[in-house]
Formats: sequence, C-alpha cells, structure tokens
Amino acid sequence: MTQDIAVHGTVADGFEAVREEFAALVARERDDYEGQLCAYVRGRRVVDLWAGDVGAGDALYGVFSATKGAAHLVTALLVQDGTLDLDRKVTYYWPEFGTEGKGELTLRDLLAHRAGLVGTDAGFTRAELADDRVIAEHLADQRPFWRPGAAFGYHALVIGALTGEVVRRATGRTVQDLYEDRVRAPYGLDFHLGLPATAESRFRGPQPMAPTPDEQAFLDSLPKDGPHTLTAIAFNRHAAEPTDMARLHEDPLIRAKGPASVGGVASARGLARMYAAMTGEVDGKAPLLKADTVAEFGRIHSAGYDLVARGHMSFALGFQATADLWHPFLGAGALGHSGANGTQAFADPRTGLAYGYTRRRFGFTPGAAPENDRLARAAHQAALATG
Amino acid sequence: MTQDIAVHGTVADGFEAVREEFAALVARERDDYEGQLCAYVRGRRVVDLWAGDVGAGDALYGVFSATKGAAHLVTALLVQDGTLDLDRKVTYYWPEFGTEGKGELTLRDLLAHRAGLVGTDAGFTRAELADDRVIAEHLADQRPFWRPGAAFGYHALVIGALTGEVVRRATGRTVQDLYEDRVRAPYGLDFHLGLPATAESRFRGPQPMAPTPDEQAFLDSLPKDGPHTLTAIAFNRHAAEPTDMARLHEDPLIRAKGPASVGGVASARGLARMYAAMTGEVDGKAPLLKADTVAEFGRIHSAGYDLVARGHMSFALGFQATADLWHPFLGAGALGHSGANGTQAFADPRTGLAYGYTRRRFGFTPGAAPENDRLARAAHQAALATG
Amino acid sequence: MTQDIAVHGTVADGFEAVREEFAALVARERDDYEGQLCAYVRGRRVVDLWAGDVGAGDALYGVFSATKGAAHLVTALLVQDGTLDLDRKVTYYWPEFGTEGKGELTLRDLLAHRAGLVGTDAGFTRAELADDRVIAEHLADQRPFWRPGAAFGYHALVIGALTGEVVRRATGRTVQDLYEDRVRAPYGLDFHLGLPATAESRFRGPQPMAPTPDEQAFLDSLPKDGPHTLTAIAFNRHAAEPTDMARLHEDPLIRAKGPASVGGVASARGLARMYAAMTGEVDGKAPLLKADTVAEFGRIHSAGYDLVARGHMSFALGFQATADLWHPFLGAGALGHSGANGTQAFADPRTGLAYGYTRRRFGFTPGAAPENDRLARAAHQAALATG
Repeated sequence: MTQDIAVHGTVADGFEAVREEFAALVARERDDYEGQLCAYVRGRRVVDLWAGDVGAGDALYGVFSATKGAAHLVTALLVQDGTLDLDRKVTYYWPEFGTEGKGELTLRDLLAHRAGLVGTDAGFTRAELADDRVIAEHLADQRPFWRPGAAFGYHALVIGALTGEVVRRATGRTVQDLYEDRVRAPYGLDFHLGLPATAESRFRGPQPMAPTPDEQAFLDSLPKDGPHTLTAIAFNRHAAEPTDMARLHEDPLIRAKGPASVGGVASARGLARMYAAMTGEVDGKAPLLKADTVAEFGRIHSAGYDLVARGHMSFALGFQATADLWHPFLGAGALGHSGANGTQAFADPRTGLAYGYTRRRFGFTPGAAPENDRLARAAHQAALATG
Repeated sequence: MTQDIAVHGTVADGFEAVREEFAALVARERDDYEGQLCAYVRGRRVVDLWAGDVGAGDALYGVFSATKGAAHLVTALLVQDGTLDLDRKVTYYWPEFGTEGKGELTLRDLLAHRAGLVGTDAGFTRAELADDRVIAEHLADQRPFWRPGAAFGYHALVIGALTGEVVRRATGRTVQDLYEDRVRAPYGLDFHLGLPATAESRFRGPQPMAPTPDEQAFLDSLPKDGPHTLTAIAFNRHAAEPTDMARLHEDPLIRAKGPASVGGVASARGLARMYAAMTGEVDGKAPLLKADTVAEFGRIHSAGYDLVARGHMSFALGFQATADLWHPFLGAGALGHSGANGTQAFADPRTGLAYGYTRRRFGFTPGAAPENDRLARAAHQAALATG
Repeated sequence: MTQDIAVHGTVADGFEAVREEFAALVARERDDYEGQLCAYVRGRRVVDLWAGDVGAGDALYGVFSATKGAAHLVTALLVQDGTLDLDRKVTYYWPEFGTEGKGELTLRDLLAHRAGLVGTDAGFTRAELADDRVIAEHLADQRPFWRPGAAFGYHALVIGALTGEVVRRATGRTVQDLYEDRVRAPYGLDFHLGLPATAESRFRGPQPMAPTPDEQAFLDSLPKDGPHTLTAIAFNRHAAEPTDMARLHEDPLIRAKGPASVGGVASARGLARMYAAMTGEVDGKAPLLKADTVAEFGRIHSAGYDLVARGHMSFALGFQATADLWHPFLGAGALGHSGANGTQAFADPRTGLAYGYTRRRFGFTPGAAPENDRLARAAHQAALATG
C-alpha cells in the first residue's frame, strides 16, 4: 500500500457515500488492486466507479458464477413466454435425463439446486468444462449424489449446463445464443456468454488471491478438504485435470464459449445494466421480465444446509436469494449471483436498485467478497433515500 | 435499582425455588419492573406471584404473540370436534384463497407457518391490523414469499387471521367469539381476545425496552435491517404506517378487537390457567383437549431455518414447539407461545405443568425474555419433584 | 499418565503416520487406556494396532451404535437381492405398523431416521431393550413424535428394531441370523450381533467416561436435560428403568441377543473387515454389495437439524453419511456408523479404505471420539498416497 490508487468515475447526487466506501476499499487493498463498481436505480445509472491500471474503466473480467444470472435470465424469459414450464419433468424436454432415478425431477428442481447432480464420478476435462452440451450429456447418466428431494446443494460448475440443455431441447438454440439475441445485443451489455474476438483486447486475466500473512494463517488453519468430497466433485477438483478456478478464464476456449455456469466475462457496468434491464425500464425499453416473473424467480426455493457449501445457503430459481444470506438488508425477492473472484451482481426490485461489482484479483475469502457488504449497503441506502 | 421491589403472592409447598428465582429476577431488573408469574400442576395453582406497583396482581397486559396460543386452542377444539380437518386444502373452506399457486396448501400448512404468506407487498394500516378479516382478505390475493412447501417462516402478525378465516368460513363465527364462549367465559380466564370495556381499568399499557448501556451497545452492534426485508414485511415495518410492536396495545381498537395473532390481553394467571384447562382438569371440568389432540397440536411440524426469524425456530401446529427451542428441558410435545414483550406461556403435558409469565416493560432482547429460562426451569423441577 | 502404554501391532508400508497418530493418542490418554485401530485398503489389511492390557489385541468390546452398520448391511443385501424394496410402504411388510398415521411411511423413511418413532411414551425395560421384536411391537402402536415427513431425528436405540422387523416379516428370519449366515461367519468377523458363549472370555466390559477436571467442568456447564425430552425418550432415560448407555453391555442378555441398534460386540479388526468385505474383495470373495448398492445406501437422505441430537446430523440409509459430518475429508458416499464409547467404523468407497476403531473406556465427549478425526485422516491420507 505504498502508493495511492486513484478512484475514477462518477456518482449521481445522493450516492456520494458509495464513492466513499469504494475509496475506502481501494485504500485497504493492495496497490495493484483493480476493480469496478456500477449501480442503477430504476433504469438510471447512479454509480460508475473503477480503480486500477489505465484502461480499467473499460476492462472486462471473468465473473465466474455471476454468469449464472445471465443464463437464468434466459430461462426466466422462456418461462415468461410459455416456452418452458417450471413444473414439467426434465424428461419432457430431455428424455435421456431420466436414468438413475431422475425421472421425477422438474425444471424447478434443477433451478433450485435440488437435483443432486453436482458433478460426475469421473470429473470433467478442461475442454469438457467449456462445453455445456458435453457436461449435460455426462450428467444425464449420473446417479444423483443425494436422494432427490431430500436436500439441496450448490451445482457450482454445472447448473447452467443442466438448465441450458432444457433450453436447447425446447428451443433448438443454446442459452448463449438466446442470451446474445434477446439480452446482450439489444442493450449493448458488456456481459458476455462467449466473448467475441473483438472484445478480447479489453479482457484482463484473473489474478490469484494474495492473502496477507494473517489471512494466509487463517486459510492454513482450515481443515484440508479431501480430493473426493462432494465439494471437491462439485468444483471438479477430483478430476484427472483438477480445475483451478482462479485460472479458468486463462483458457481461451472458456472465454470463447462462455459456459453458462461460470464462463461469463463482464464489466461491472454490464452486470448492473443487465439486472437493471431485467427488472426495470432501460433506454426506454420495457423491462425484460414482468414483475410476476421477477417475483417467481426471486422467491426462495432452497434455504438451509447446503451439502456442497457445507453451510447455510439460499437459492431462488437459478439465482441466489441475495437478501437471505448475502445482503440481508435488501428487500424480499432480491435476486442475483456472486462469483468466486469477488463479483457480486443483483437486482433489488423493491428499491429498483441494480448492482454490479467485479475485481481482477480474487478477493479474500472466495465467494462474494466481503467488500460487497459495505458497497451494496451504501448503494441500497442511497437508493432508499433518493428513491 | 435504588429501592427494593416487593414480590407478592404465594407458592405451594415444594415451589419455593420458583419464588426465589422470581425474587432474583426482580432484584436484577429496573426499579419500575412490573411482572407476573403463575403456574399450575395438574389443575392446581402452585405459583401465583407478581411484583410492581400496587394493583399489579390484578393487572392485564398486552401479551403479543402469546395470543396465538388462545387462537389455536380454538382451532384444536374444532379439529377435535371434526369441524375442521387438518389435511383439507384451505380452499375447501375458503375458495378465494386459491390464487397465486396457493391451491394445494392445507390447514396444516397454515398452522405450521409453511404457507409463505407472512404479510403483503403493500403492508397493513393500523386499522387493518386490528381486523383479522381484512388481513385475511388481503392475504388471499398475495403471492407466497417462498415456494410453498420449500421452507417455513414465522407468520408473526397474520397466522391468526389466516387460520381464523378458515374457522369463520367453517363455523360462521369468529375465532374471538368461539374463544369467548368455549374457553374464556367457562373458566373466567383473564386472557382476552377482545378486551371488554369493563376490564379496561385493569389494563396497563406497554412500556418500551429500556436497555442498559451495555445492552444498547449490543443492539447498536447488530446489522441494521432494511425496510423491505422479509422480516420487515412480516412485522409490517415496510408499511406506510410502520408497526411499532411495543406500542401496539396503546391502540384501543387492538385491545377491543383482539386480533388473533398479537392482540390478546392477559394476566399470567389467565395464561397459565388457559394451558391448565387445555391439557388437564380444572375446577372439575374435563380437559378441553384430549391427549391425542394435545399430542397432534404439540408435535413438531416445522423445525430448522426460519426465513423470517433468520435462525432456528420450531413450530408445532399454531403453537411453538416450546421444548425444542425455548425451554429444552421440557418434555417432548410441550406447546405454547411466547410474546414480544417477554411473555411466555405453555403446557408441558408430561409433567402436567402449565406456565404463564408476562411483564409490562419489554424485556431485553425481544421475544421470550431470558428470565423465562430460569423461571420455567425452576417450575419444571418443582413439578417433577412434587408430581 | 505416569507410565507409558505400549502400542502393539503392525502397519503396512506407507501407513507409518497412522501408527504415529495412534501412539500420540495413547500418550494423551489415561494410563489405563485400552483401544484398537484397524484399517483395510481394497481388501488388504494395512493397519492393525492396539494398546492396553495384555490380551487387548484379541479383545472384544461393546460397539454401541456402530452395531447399526452390521444390521443395515443386511438390509442392503436384501434390497440388492430384490427381497426388499426401499420405496414400499412399511405396512406392505408389517401391517400392524400402520396405526397413528404411519400408513404412508416407507422402508426408506425408516432407514433415513424420518419416521419419528424414536421411542415410546412409556419407555422400555432392560429386558425389552434386548429384544428387537418386543421393541418393534411397542413402536407399532406409537404415535410419531413429529409429523412424518416434516423432519428427522436419530432413532438411537430403535432403528435396528424397526428395520429388523421389516426384515423378519419379509424373510421369516431375524436380522441377527441373516447377519451371522451371510456376513459374519463367511468372513470369520469379530463383529457379533449376539455374542456366542465361546467368545465371552474375550469380551471386556465397558468403562465409564473419566473426564479430566477441565472436561468435567465443561460437562457441568452444559444445561441439564430434562427427563422427558425427545432426546431423553430416544435414549430411554424417561423409562422406569432409565438406560445407562455406558453399562449397556454389562447385561449378558444384551450381549447374547445383540439388538440391532446398539447391542453389537466387536473388535476394530471386525469392524474394519466388515466394511472391507461390504465394499470390496476380501479373501478372494466378491464384494458383498455391488457399487450401485453402496452408492444408494451411502447417499445422503437426511441432513440438517436433527430433532433428537438437537444439532446438525447427516444420515444415508441406515448408515451415517460419514463424509458430511464426522470426517469431512472423506469421499462423497462414505458410509459407516460411530458408537457412544468412541467407536468409529466406515467405508470410503472412493479410496477403498475401510476403517475400524474402538476403545474400552468411553471417550470424551460421547459419540465418535475426537481422536477418530486424526486417526481417520492419517489413514485416508495414506490410502490416497499408496492407492
């Protein structure tokens, strides 16, 4: 922290406290910190901040599990259209899925992380992890890791492949294609499921966590996980080519194909703008989702002990129930998804707030970085006060 | 604590330790403390204590959620009669309820806090909160806040209106009327759902919590809840007229109508006597409920993470499963309900103990005041030793 | 700890760290410590250690709930054979079971500790607890202690009687007989459900916990349980003859009949060898269970708040889901069962490890003794490194 990192960008009147929190974060971080924060309230961009190297304002980062938000916005659109029915059995769309006692599972169960298909016994190769269709094929043959219906657990690397295969069978198109046509392109979002070659120059590769000595001591004090645990399987650490999440987006195939669980590339602007467009009017366009659809996809479907996370988790449909666990000050029905590097993105329909944050270097600890608590709280307070 | 507050009343032989615990509590409290403790064992009053201003022995207080115990004693009577069937769909009794995917919910689901109807998006006015029928009408149109069946959460201000509407549709009478006729009047209980004008002179208005500096520091250290969280909605803090629980009974309309979730007014004698009459012989009358009915209404129906309380809760049917969470030394099947000011009331069928405690000033922290742990433990020990 | 206790026995190359952990444990324990540790990897015995008095190498101890592993291996064999169907209603096999709303419960529900029949209101006599058939008869009449389907809880003293009665009705034979014929005798296992008179001379009676002053202070600081709680009922502490678990195997009737929940007598060799034979080839014989059966019986069926344990528990089918709670470094699908004296026994199919540990004196605190964490971790690491 030998030199100050400048905070760039603007905030609307009333959002000065958000800038202060962001500046405080930047001051606490290492001097190579690079990150972005953006927020909308009812379609208007009210926060647009970044810090780090020149160019960081336009930079694109891997956003890991925040990708799931984009993928499941597509699912929500198809449910809204009537193309998909949440309570239909998966086998209605995808007959091969019905092996190993999976015949009763519904699309809703998949979206609520209840299917028990968090990975495969064999694990995935690097190339397979980039290809949702291959992931789905392997999972169709897999016995669920718990009794379907008895529990839930985070389908970290595969939920987008499972729900995406339902989308593909029902529409003939991939979730990536539908997202591009119905969501990304119309709004010019910097949030890609499949990064085009033309945007590659703005992509800045991930940096691994750089814990302080105290943080490292904490990490060292944690019990070591085994290589075959349910958590290891869900994160593909048991595979012949174990996945190193922090390096996932180094693989050009991941960036190019944008697998729907973790392969997305975005800026904070893209993240926030997507949630703004999903739940409200942006650029004069009607909200992508009707209030009823937002309410259904934002309702809690699974809450309590998560067999993969081994602690409390809360899921809506395809989205995290962001207000139950991550940011408990948000309104009921807030929905979004965090990512392993510290990305956080959500909509809070009761205030009209849409929030996006991402950072280049993995934060301490993995998952939604703790800085989001202060940043999101400040943004939410300002949205309330100015709303 | 500059002057001693006298402890008044009597205890039966063998219950001296209960008096000692009550005296110790009074000595720890502020010098304006005012409270009552009463217990029965198998129909015999064994504890009758109070402290505070002259007249506190006959005083009546708002008992907040302890009200739910009276309301659901009525439900239990109707189930016992065969008038209500726990496993019938709510729409069988109340067709208008079946909107927004609520058609499959049963009376049992309502009683187990599983319906997800903890409030309405718009919130209630003060006047509406006094009127169970209006509450029920609004809730009939509401989309559940979670997927029905996937979770449970404390229906703090509305469960009595939901179950009460089923009662009204099935019998043509309000739960308040039925309670008066079948429970309160026959036993002369000082536990009112709708306080008659003649008893108003004995009502002593609530006093807000008066934390010590340390307690205040603790309260200040808690993360601030937002105005639109599920918890806020369940406690009507998001409404145009946000509810201030501590002042609820200041409203004469609340006292007069006695809404079935939180509007009750009682003394400790009334609380304990009701549970004594519910589960055993009192004044030579047969128990209001048969052992089978007590067992059914006292069985755990929802236990684990409560989406409103955001922590562990345990519900039987309409009653709290008092032995699972509140007083873990009690016998399996103990059932009762605490109230926000510190009220606690329950029956422990395996010892024949019926317990009632209330206090004028809100205790620290909200919910069943911690003093109940020692008081109830002493009463339970004495019941075991003398039983 | 005034004198050293010798560690006896052998470990295979690569398992030296297991011996070191066992020696460290012995050094930490009282000087009358007596215990055994054994492990197999893919059918080969790799750890065979013991400490304590002369003869401890061949000694047999009560293994309490580790008994359930042997009993449910029999259930698994019958499911594999097609003799039992997990999803059939219990009443299909056992019509008298269908009282008190239990008609919908399945064999799977029994095995997953979901039935709510953790004991009876009256409790069991000492003689009754030795006789699974009598236990089952009493439970057939009992109302479940929670709403079936709504929760789960550890059926500590009775699960083997419930599932054993299903076995008896379906086959005409007791689970003890079937175990002897199909499992124990073919492998010459020192793990008995019903200890023969010829083996009595090797049985060494249990010794109660001997806490240090600090441990005693901790135990004293715990809130006292009541005599009628659900936990007390599940452990038969409410009965006219309350069960003292630590003395259970002092009763020759318990040893002779070997009730299927807690009456087993074994050595560590017997425990480990049973799990080795269950999941892999031993002495050239095919595994007792096919991989599919192991996967089904090792899948998590109940996880979260356990109403009897009053904390987090995880059950597979008849077995504990050992990798979820007890030893989180194990692979998904690890299955086994601990016992009150500190016994632990499990199979970890993903490494081929089978583990058995037992001790004469009850460890601190009750349940799988904490020493198992280090011992099992060392064994697992060695299995991984040498596998």
